[in-house]
Amino acid sequence: MPSEFQLIADYFTRPVRRAERLALGVGDDCALLTPGPGMQLAVSTDMLVEGRHFFAGAEPRSLGHKCLAVNLSDLAAMGAKPLAFTLALALPDANEAWLAEFAQGMLALADAHGCELIGGDTTRGPLNICITVFGEVPMAEALRRDHAQVGDDIWISGTLGDARLALAGYLNEIELDSATQEEAGKRMHAPTPRVALGLALRGVARAAIDISDGLQGDLQHILERSQVGATIDVDALPAGPMLARHDTDLRRRFTLAGGDDYELCFTAARIKHDAILVAARETGVTVTRIGRIEAEPGLRLTGRDGEPLAITTTSFDHFRTP
Amino acid sequence: MPSEFQLIADYFTRPVRRAERLALGVGDDCALLTPGPGMQLAVSTDMLVEGRHFFAGAEPRSLGHKCLAVNLSDLAAMGAKPLAFTLALALPDANEAWLAEFAQGMLALADAHGCELIGGDTTRGPLNICITVFGEVPMAEALRRDHAQVGDDIWISGTLGDARLALAGYLNEIELDSATQEEAGKRMHAPTPRVALGLALRGVARAAIDISDGLQGDLQHILERSQVGATIDVDALPAGPMLARHDTDLRRRFTLAGGDDYELCFTAARIKHDAILVAARETGVTVTRIGRIEAEPGLRLTGRDGEPLAITTTSFDHFRTP
Repeated sequence: MPSEFQLIADYFTRPVRRAERLALGVGDDCALLTPGPGMQLAVSTDMLVEGRHFFAGAEPRSLGHKCLAVNLSDLAAMGAKPLAFTLALALPDANEAWLAEFAQGMLALADAHGCELIGGDTTRGPLNICITVFGEVPMAEALRRDHAQVGDDIWISGTLGDARLALAGYLNEIELDSATQEEAGKRMHAPTPRVALGLALRGVARAAIDISDGLQGDLQHILERSQVGATIDVDALPAGPMLARHDTDLRRRFTLAGGDDYELCFTAARIKHDAILVAARETGVTVTRIGRIEAEPGLRLTGRDGEPLAITTTSFDHFRTP
Repeated sequence: MPSEFQLIADYFTRPVRRAERLALGVGDDCALLTPGPGMQLAVSTDMLVEGRHFFAGAEPRSLGHKCLAVNLSDLAAMGAKPLAFTLALALPDANEAWLAEFAQGMLALADAHGCELIGGDTTRGPLNICITVFGEVPMAEALRRDHAQVGDDIWISGTLGDARLALAGYLNEIELDSATQEEAGKRMHAPTPRVALGLALRGVARAAIDISDGLQGDLQHILERSQVGATIDVDALPAGPMLARHDTDLRRRFTLAGGDDYELCFTAARIKHDAILVAARETGVTVTRIGRIEAEPGLRLTGRDGEPLAITTTSFDHFRTP
């Protein structure tokens, strides 16, 4: 069996590119990283556990993609440009075929974003993948959760709910034909972090968050941190193409509290309306206005007719009793 | 059962100190961090798995200490000053008493080093603790593994082998009286990262590494990265006070390849001899000269008499077949 150090050398060490920001990568006690002049470093950590964040036996290439994608999504929600990441990996055994696929899926996405693997740790243990990602953002331009203001429009990128639809199919909560299951499954297994949109929203949007646990719960974080409230039009939420074929009830529930969407929810002054449409067009992402920030605390839901809706959903919480 | 967000709020969110380097901490998509002018950011990640890096049922307070200590030790080995860390935690259940103790052990050490918890992730899963730590070091003063030069003295801080002695006792490899087991156990459970010494060695030492897997294996990393060799006097290795009472064979093996020591092994030009003794005295750490960097590749061991020694040891490797 190859050693820990051999595994790192074989699958995760690449020719050092000595990128502008990176003085020293894998293979020392620490990596050395320098944000550019006037830049702050944005840092985020996500841990993915087998059986909790992905099914046991998940296909390793898309798993590698997804683990990095969810971290890049956090940078996107901050308006930060990806620079580098560290990877800590607990593996039940040193399965080289698995590792090769996993590394390829991860490093392909990393390369697409110029995000360098600069360090990490490998150990034996129940499958667990912990990534810490680093980006840079100009001082005072970060899209912070606590910056929403009363009167801001609330926007969402892309579409919601197809990842949740795929999960419902896998769990036999609903029956999906195999083509739908496969299409929706792509959304669940290979999310696209909205990095370019996040960068384009610097100086345009005020507050942002990425939708990982479901819009309803995640938007609440913006409301609480900004000490504001909001009303959103549930029927304005853009359903994914697979979910769009289902009935209103399912569409409302899965767009509102689906989870695993990795779209950006952001707020912006009304005067930025056109600038946002430009940012979206230039980055090839659709955006939809879904509501308004208000002074009254709490999140209010309405239907297309503007009448209040009472929808019972629960946002994803890793310690919720199943 | 408290939610994920409540757990974070209860145990790991503290009044934001808005330290000079920290613009934004726990509670957004990313933390924002700014190294000082002329400083590089040093980054290191370690993952600790129950049953692999610590015994199942380990006392949570010292576990919290140790998880951060091993990361701070990586900063020390780089000559970097601790700034901040992220914590990702997979827990089998939300045991609040356990979490309170764990957080206290970790945050006490963090406070002692002015190292702020700036973000993280909690999830349900087999117990796994992943920390990424950030420090700053002036450009070109980092103690890199690839900077050793032929003719350098090789030094070690503190003492070696007591943590390995404790492990041997727990595993019934050898019999220890309960007082010895307890004393040696402290060394294993509550290592002291040599942060102050690492800082004092900036501009004095050339290459450094922290001893986590055992001196013999870890020194090899310096030799390989610097493309040099070395000879060390095994009988000059400073044994921990508990190990020192044992016979020569055990002392040699456990100082050479014990693991879990978290001392610094560093190289320095001969002319820096006195400066190193000053750095050690000022930081209250003993240092011992144990050998010399040479042009001939490989690591050669001698006894006190200078005669070559052949000692069979294996450095710790997480994927080694047990």
